[in-house]
Amino acid sequence: MLRTAVAPLAVSLGDPAGIGPEVIAKCWDNREAFALPPFVAIGDPRSLAAVWDGPIEPVDDPRQADAAFDYGLPVIQLNAPQADIPGHPSVVGAHTSLDSLEIAVGLARSGSASGVVTGPVAKEQLYGIGFQHPGQTEFVAERCGVAFANVVMMLAGPTLRTVPVTTHLPLAEVPRALSSGLIESRGRAALRGLQRNFGIPEPRLAVSGLNPHSGEGGQLGREEIEIIEPAIAALAAEGWRVSGPHPADTMFHARARAGYDAALCMYHDQALIPIKALHFEEAVNVTLGLPIVRTAPDHGTAFDIAGQDRADPRPMAAAIRMAAENAILRAEAVA
Amino acid sequence: MLRTAVAPLAVSLGDPAGIGPEVIAKCWDNREAFALPPFVAIGDPRSLAAVWDGPIEPVDDPRQADAAFDYGLPVIQLNAPQADIPGHPSVVGAHTSLDSLEIAVGLARSGSASGVVTGPVAKEQLYGIGFQHPGQTEFVAERCGVAFANVVMMLAGPTLRTVPVTTHLPLAEVPRALSSGLIESRGRAALRGLQRNFGIPEPRLAVSGLNPHSGEGGQLGREEIEIIEPAIAALAAEGWRVSGPHPADTMFHARARAGYDAALCMYHDQALIPIKALHFEEAVNVTLGLPIVRTAPDHGTAFDIAGQDRADPRPMAAAIRMAAENAILRAEAVA
Repeated sequence: MLRTAVAPLAVSLGDPAGIGPEVIAKCWDNREAFALPPFVAIGDPRSLAAVWDGPIEPVDDPRQADAAFDYGLPVIQLNAPQADIPGHPSVVGAHTSLDSLEIAVGLARSGSASGVVTGPVAKEQLYGIGFQHPGQTEFVAERCGVAFANVVMMLAGPTLRTVPVTTHLPLAEVPRALSSGLIESRGRAALRGLQRNFGIPEPRLAVSGLNPHSGEGGQLGREEIEIIEPAIAALAAEGWRVSGPHPADTMFHARARAGYDAALCMYHDQALIPIKALHFEEAVNVTLGLPIVRTAPDHGTAFDIAGQDRADPRPMAAAIRMAAENAILRAEAVA
Repeated sequence: MLRTAVAPLAVSLGDPAGIGPEVIAKCWDNREAFALPPFVAIGDPRSLAAVWDGPIEPVDDPRQADAAFDYGLPVIQLNAPQADIPGHPSVVGAHTSLDSLEIAVGLARSGSASGVVTGPVAKEQLYGIGFQHPGQTEFVAERCGVAFANVVMMLAGPTLRTVPVTTHLPLAEVPRALSSGLIESRGRAALRGLQRNFGIPEPRLAVSGLNPHSGEGGQLGREEIEIIEPAIAALAAEGWRVSGPHPADTMFHARARAGYDAALCMYHDQALIPIKALHFEEAVNVTLGLPIVRTAPDHGTAFDIAGQDRADPRPMAAAIRMAAENAILRAEAVA
């Protein structure tokens, strides 16, 4: 077990009817094998008991988790009016998942927790209770007082990190959503995040092209020339180590990956296809640009397999481990 | 060395100033380690001698290559008016590369060779001598009397095969280039190719979505609902095993790949990012829908490193090996 000088992590259980409680409990079961630091789960303990027979250690404060962690899974308990059945999401469960997220963020903001790891939530359920954000990341940004435009999502695995410039847009809307300013701001946030969260003093950013063969000198599209190259030049002029635009298909083999610390990609699948092809069980969603550390496993609630002991805890374990590493590096940078 | 009942393969050297001659010579050097069957190179032997000290065995017919292959690299010689310098492409070299391609295809069509493997050519050079085709594949299709619409490019590696529905188009033009008819015809050609070239009697085709999360029920784009799903239904109605549309980012991890024999992708990078991320040194470009076997390594002329003994022969070796396997399976299917 990784004992650290920083406070324990706050891990929200996510939707109580999803696989969040199960994978978090399995992380505690396998804390030695996964080399996990102490963490405290936040949510309704009945959602853990419904899928797990292990010991629960009720705590009031993350600082108690350090001592309790050897004896059971420390839990800051939310007492929902009723317990959810695994695989059957409800309005009550949506409220519980939102409360646990809010408490986790608050604990990290106050410094009681060294960072937040978020369990998977069901957006449709959250929308049903009036949730106004496209996802948890936007909610966390707002609670931290940061404009979402300054926040970036990074997908990080053992040999590759990618950052999408645009995310949940129809592919047809991607070309007109791209601008030099957007690429610059995402690139800058990615570079600062590599410094702050990953401890890389002079990070190298590889920027992808949008079109096949990066547009082949304008013959297969002009976005590289008109939008991407000026953004790269602007970032380079600020002193950042930025390369590209690179043809996306030849950016992700082992030798190419060794040449940069993160790839800035133009759209969702350009960033997510390679990370999931290479690192499906270890890909972590890291939010950069926040005053706190926040990671999440890159999977959803998986209601269809919830409560069947089939959920793979490795992505959650990778998210907890990366949050701890980020927290230590940020604490060292401040110290 | 793989001795087969089928005729040797015809391997065109490609542009004499590119890395084609070097990687083909290195394939002969390493024929045992790479488990390569007999093949005959076609081109100007001076382009081999410029980068390689090994023995050349001049032959007139591929059938002589079987006996000659143990003693040297069998070559059907083209006598160009002058030799090219590695790294310095010329008009003469463009003519030579086109002649060697044409002869290779003719030998395969006549049955003297069991298939064609094409070395890399420089399109700009070929355009300069009046070449009217976008690439070698279109030229080969025309020489075989097959409409290009019925031919598909497959990228094949040890654990993944992908087929792009659209290829060299600006990304912005992809959505309107897609139609149910095009997806159906590409899918059908891919499925028939899996049967004929890869010996899979009931091939499974996984079709990707176009948009993030496959459009999320229409919220992130409607091409899945309006174009892709009808194409899948039409192929399924013909009795083919077709699934999808699948979110592209979760199609390419190991467990997902085990569920299909080829992935039909909507655009160039969707097909090429995963194959090159996973199998950069072993990805082979296979042309399906032709009366002959044709493969190629998935790299270009690399003029910048030609003549420096730095070119990696593994992609060419993989292309030769796959052509031989395809040829044997096709011969068995006919027998």
